[in-house]
Amino acid sequence: MTTRMHEEIREQPEVLGRVLDEEWNPVLSAARVLRDRGFRSVMLAARGTSDNAAHYAKYLFEVILGVPAALASPSVFTLYESRMKLDDVLVIGISQSGESKDVLETVRRSRELGASTLSVTNDEESPLARAAEFHFSLRAGREESVAATKTYTAELLLSYLLVAALKGEEAPGEDVRRLPGAVREVLGSGWEGTDRYRYADHLVVASRGYNLATAQEAALKLMETSYVVAESFSVADLRHGPIAMIGQDFPVIAIVPPGKARPGVTALVENLGDRGAEVAVISDNGALTGRAAVRFLVPSSCPEELSPILYAIPPQMLAENLALLKGLNPDTPRGLSKITETW
Amino acid sequence: MTTRMHEEIREQPEVLGRVLDEEWNPVLSAARVLRDRGFRSVMLAARGTSDNAAHYAKYLFEVILGVPAALASPSVFTLYESRMKLDDVLVIGISQSGESKDVLETVRRSRELGASTLSVTNDEESPLARAAEFHFSLRAGREESVAATKTYTAELLLSYLLVAALKGEEAPGEDVRRLPGAVREVLGSGWEGTDRYRYADHLVVASRGYNLATAQEAALKLMETSYVVAESFSVADLRHGPIAMIGQDFPVIAIVPPGKARPGVTALVENLGDRGAEVAVISDNGALTGRAAVRFLVPSSCPEELSPILYAIPPQMLAENLALLKGLNPDTPRGLSKITETW
Repeated sequence: MTTRMHEEIREQPEVLGRVLDEEWNPVLSAARVLRDRGFRSVMLAARGTSDNAAHYAKYLFEVILGVPAALASPSVFTLYESRMKLDDVLVIGISQSGESKDVLETVRRSRELGASTLSVTNDEESPLARAAEFHFSLRAGREESVAATKTYTAELLLSYLLVAALKGEEAPGEDVRRLPGAVREVLGSGWEGTDRYRYADHLVVASRGYNLATAQEAALKLMETSYVVAESFSVADLRHGPIAMIGQDFPVIAIVPPGKARPGVTALVENLGDRGAEVAVISDNGALTGRAAVRFLVPSSCPEELSPILYAIPPQMLAENLALLKGLNPDTPRGLSKITETW
Repeated sequence: MTTRMHEEIREQPEVLGRVLDEEWNPVLSAARVLRDRGFRSVMLAARGTSDNAAHYAKYLFEVILGVPAALASPSVFTLYESRMKLDDVLVIGISQSGESKDVLETVRRSRELGASTLSVTNDEESPLARAAEFHFSLRAGREESVAATKTYTAELLLSYLLVAALKGEEAPGEDVRRLPGAVREVLGSGWEGTDRYRYADHLVVASRGYNLATAQEAALKLMETSYVVAESFSVADLRHGPIAMIGQDFPVIAIVPPGKARPGVTALVENLGDRGAEVAVISDNGALTGRAAVRFLVPSSCPEELSPILYAIPPQMLAENLALLKGLNPDTPRGLSKITETW
């Protein structure tokens, strides 16, 4: 069976290429206005997969641009009708469909309250696209699988381009332009050992820093498509309590990116191995993946701040594989639709 | 077996009373200085249980005070050495021990970068207590159980008092002063039906708004003490994907508080019931708890913004009961110590 999810995962090099070709100019224009106007903090509003992209964007704003960023709690607006002082805040709403009601409401109310507003959607005619002062398009083509894949990596790339433009770059750098090719290389590789997850009903995904977003998105994909109870943690948060539940044979997936997060996640892999847990490894470090029973060796490398785009791919492939292994159709998870209403 | 966790849960009315009696004046003095100086946003740094208290504080700042609040990503400072512009930011570090290294580093670096800083700890001599310009004490006495309980509700109360004082209140209101008594009433009630969880190895906890913090803390307590894979979601986030994993007989705990979050969580309880999930209910609404096989009827009521203090208690009792039911000692979970080092 070839699923839509499978096809959409494979479209990612093209989509990322289109974003680079077609969205850099809109990003640059918006960034010029926003730099002139100035903003002192950022608020990111999103749900589900897009919220994981927002987590990545938070790190970019704080580390690369030095501007504090918050993840919005949409119910602050939709339920509690807060009137926040937002006149020096940049509010960014991210939603594949552009119809997520509480993200829309957050952007709309923020704009009334004086914030600069920007939206990122895959539909330029959507309410969210029209509600914000600036809009970037995901250029992903129609996404039919309920489990978002290509729109997720496009959201990551657009977040990166925005921060680069706000920092004053005049064109996407060499590392960014190499991404579509690097993603193609990752798609040419594969998992080893995942049959062991056929009857797993829970697992933990862990990473750190920029790739905390990757761990969160991996857990979400697994919950949506394979009905596994998957929970994600930063290495630091895992040690503050949840590690107690991890015993003998407990399955953990460690995302071990390049850069500054690597030593901490590597130490976790070793510690969990000592506890008898079974740790799967996604890494470009062959020595590390070589010791793992379940593994994905990432064949290309890139700077840590871009690695969430590459490292998002193996978990997508795993979620699709595992759904099929369990006899499920990953395109249409039970109880989900492409646009989610919030009660 | 009487556990330390059991005793510490029971000490909460006293601790909350002490916080009201002894900490209002320090809170008021700090609030006066901070109001005069002004701040445009808040950043909350914490890990584990204290991070759940920080989630509650975020809602208080945004809804009651109208000031945007963010949860800090400590690795932005500790790993990536960000130099954020923080001159109009209030940074609050929360840690029971006051020794959490990454929270300490976040407060220390933020202060160097121009932020106003405040710390909340249970140890006035701790490094974190000394690192911040202002310090509030949790007044909880020694907490010996690794699973924090009394320090959590004290953190919630101090967050509430700070926001009340920043709003200009001259004394704690009637509703707040009733809290120690209301907590005593909750402690006099009990769970029904929890034997069914004896062999549960995973469950989901859901709520919304202010009580999202309660759901997160409930999941953490269950993971720490009973080794259950417990995951928390806001009602809205659950519908964006994870609901797919919830099928027949899947155990869900719904925290149904009073106020604006009630309709949404009630709708979730009904929807999950239709899916065949087994939904446990914590609520002061007898009609709702009456229909649930596993239930805790909260005997006292309070405004929604204070309810996380009351609704934190039943999950603590559940975690302790369930650990004993499984033959575990909740005071000393495997792999945990009272002060957590981050790799």
